[in-house]
Amino acid sequence: MDWTTEINAAAMRTAGHIQVTPVMQSLGFGLDYPIEMKLEQMQHTGSFKARGAFNTLLSQKVPAAGLVAASGGNHGAAVAYAAHRLGHKARIYVPEMAGPAKIALIRDSGADLQVVPGAYANALEQAQTYERETGAMQVHAYDAPGTVAGQGSCFAEWQSQGLEADTVIIAVGGGGLIAGAMAWFQGAKKIIAVEPETSCALHAALASGAPVDVEVSGVAANALGARRIGAICFDLAQQNHRDDRLTSLTVSDAAITEAQTALWRERRLLVEPAGATALAALTSGVYRPAPGEKVAVLLCGGNIAPDPLG
Amino acid sequence: MDWTTEINAAAMRTAGHIQVTPVMQSLGFGLDYPIEMKLEQMQHTGSFKARGAFNTLLSQKVPAAGLVAASGGNHGAAVAYAAHRLGHKARIYVPEMAGPAKIALIRDSGADLQVVPGAYANALEQAQTYERETGAMQVHAYDAPGTVAGQGSCFAEWQSQGLEADTVIIAVGGGGLIAGAMAWFQGAKKIIAVEPETSCALHAALASGAPVDVEVSGVAANALGARRIGAICFDLAQQNHRDDRLTSLTVSDAAITEAQTALWRERRLLVEPAGATALAALTSGVYRPAPGEKVAVLLCGGNIAPDPLG
Repeated sequence: MDWTTEINAAAMRTAGHIQVTPVMQSLGFGLDYPIEMKLEQMQHTGSFKARGAFNTLLSQKVPAAGLVAASGGNHGAAVAYAAHRLGHKARIYVPEMAGPAKIALIRDSGADLQVVPGAYANALEQAQTYERETGAMQVHAYDAPGTVAGQGSCFAEWQSQGLEADTVIIAVGGGGLIAGAMAWFQGAKKIIAVEPETSCALHAALASGAPVDVEVSGVAANALGARRIGAICFDLAQQNHRDDRLTSLTVSDAAITEAQTALWRERRLLVEPAGATALAALTSGVYRPAPGEKVAVLLCGGNIAPDPLG
Repeated sequence: MDWTTEINAAAMRTAGHIQVTPVMQSLGFGLDYPIEMKLEQMQHTGSFKARGAFNTLLSQKVPAAGLVAASGGNHGAAVAYAAHRLGHKARIYVPEMAGPAKIALIRDSGADLQVVPGAYANALEQAQTYERETGAMQVHAYDAPGTVAGQGSCFAEWQSQGLEADTVIIAVGGGGLIAGAMAWFQGAKKIIAVEPETSCALHAALASGAPVDVEVSGVAANALGARRIGAICFDLAQQNHRDDRLTSLTVSDAAITEAQTALWRERRLLVEPAGATALAALTSGVYRPAPGEKVAVLLCGGNIAPDPLG
C-alpha cells in the first residue's frame, strides 16, 4: 500500500467536508515544557472519526442498501453524519456501553440506530450479519484502508500546519488513528501509543507478537475498548516497534481522569476520557521526554457524558 | 496615547506569561460561510482578562500593600492568577452574582477573596475604599490604559496569526476588550460590538452621546454586566462609530444561549454565555455579512456554571 498517496488522496477528497482543526503550543498541566496540541475533538461529530467516514463514503460506490457500521459511539456518529450529509442511508450498531450522550448524537443524525447489549465486538457481529443479509456497505471503525487513510489525513494536515515535534503521542483503541499516523509519518516522527491499562489491545499484541483478545473496561472503554487490535495497525506497529519508532505505554484510569480535569481546568477544553488519554502519559509521568525532545499530543475525542448542556 | 506602541509593548512584556490562543476557520452553526475564530477562552483563567492583568502588573511597581481588584469574576480570577504567579498579594472583590464557579476559581488561586452583595458596581465601590485605606494598587477591570493595552495584545496576536477578516465581532461588557481592538486596528477592520439586550452599556452610551448608567441582568450579566461603559472605550467607540468603523448591536438572552449550545454541539467548545455573545450576532441573524465580507468572532470566556467537572 502506498500510504502517502492514499493519505494525500484522502485529504484532497475530504477537503470541505471535514473541519480543519486548530493546533497550538500549550503551556501548563504541571509540565515544565510546552506541548503541541491538535484539537481534533473539534472535528465534526466530536472526534477524528469523521475523516475516515468521509474518505470511505467519497471513495467507494455506496450501494442502494446504504451503509452499516458498528461503533463504540464515535465512529457511528461520524458515519451517520457523513451519510446524512452525502444523502445515504445508514444503519449503526452501538453497544449499550456507548452511553446516552453518544447514542443521542447518532440518533439525532437521522441514522437507523440499533443499540446492542454488550461491548463493541457484539455490535460488530450484528453489523456483519446485516451487511451479509442486505448488501449494505460496511464502514469499519478502524481496520480498513479507507478508514486508516482518512485518519492519516489528520497528520498530513497537522504537518501542513507546522508540526514541529519529534514525538507524537496518540491514544489507541482499535488502532485506526495511530495506523494513520504511522502510515503518514513513515518513521519521520517517533510515535507513542497510549492505552488504558484496562483496555490495551495494541500493548498486548506487541507483547504477544500477534493480535490477541483482551478484556476491555474502564473510563475510556466506549471509545478505546476494542477487544483486538486491527490487522492494518498491527502490521505497521510491529514494523515501527522493531525500528524503535513506536513505544507502547499504558496509563491508569485515574491518570486519564486527572488529565481530563487538567484540560478543563487549565485550558477550558472539555474532552471525553479517550481524548485525554494521550496527555495522561505526560501528566502522569509514564512518558518523560528527553531533554530537548519536543512532544505533541493529539486530542482525539470530545463526546463526554453526561452532556454538559444536556 | 500611542496605542500601537502601548499594545506592542504589552505583547512583548506579557510573552511567556500569557497563553497564545489558537485560531481557526470554523464551518457550521447553520451559516453558509466559514468564520474565523480565536479561542481566547483557552487563555489562563479562562478569559482574555489575563492579558490586561499581566500587562498591568508587569508595567507598574506593585506596592507592599499588594493589589486590589473588583470583578464580575473573570477579571478577578485573572488578577488573582497573575498576582500569584508574580508573587504579589491580591484582594479581590466580587459580587454574589459572579456565581460559585468563578468564586471558586478565584478562591483556588490563593487570593484574599471578598464576596459582596449586589452587582459589579458594588464590588468596585468596596475595592476603591480598600485602595484608599491601604495604598494597594487598583487593577481596573476595563477602564485603565494598562488593561486596555493588555487586551489589545489579543488582536495584535491574532493579526500575527494571519487574521483575514474584514470585520471582527466582539462581545462588550465594560469595554476593555473592544477598546483594545479599536486601539489596535485603528480603523483597519470594521468592528461589531455585541451586547446582551439586558446589559448594553455601550449601546446606550452611543445612543445618548455619553456614558450613562444602565440596568444589568440576563444570562451573561456576571461577565458583561457593567453598569456604565468605560471612558477609554467610549472615546474610541465614538470616534469609530462616527467613521462608520464600529457598529453596535444587541442580542437576546435566547440568542446567546442558542449560540452557546451550537458551539458545544458542533465544535465541542464549551463557553460561558459571554463567550458565545459575539457569535450570537451571526447565528441569530442580527448581523448579516454582506456578500464576500469575511467575518471573525472572538470567543472571550469559558467560565461556565456549573463547572462541568465540578
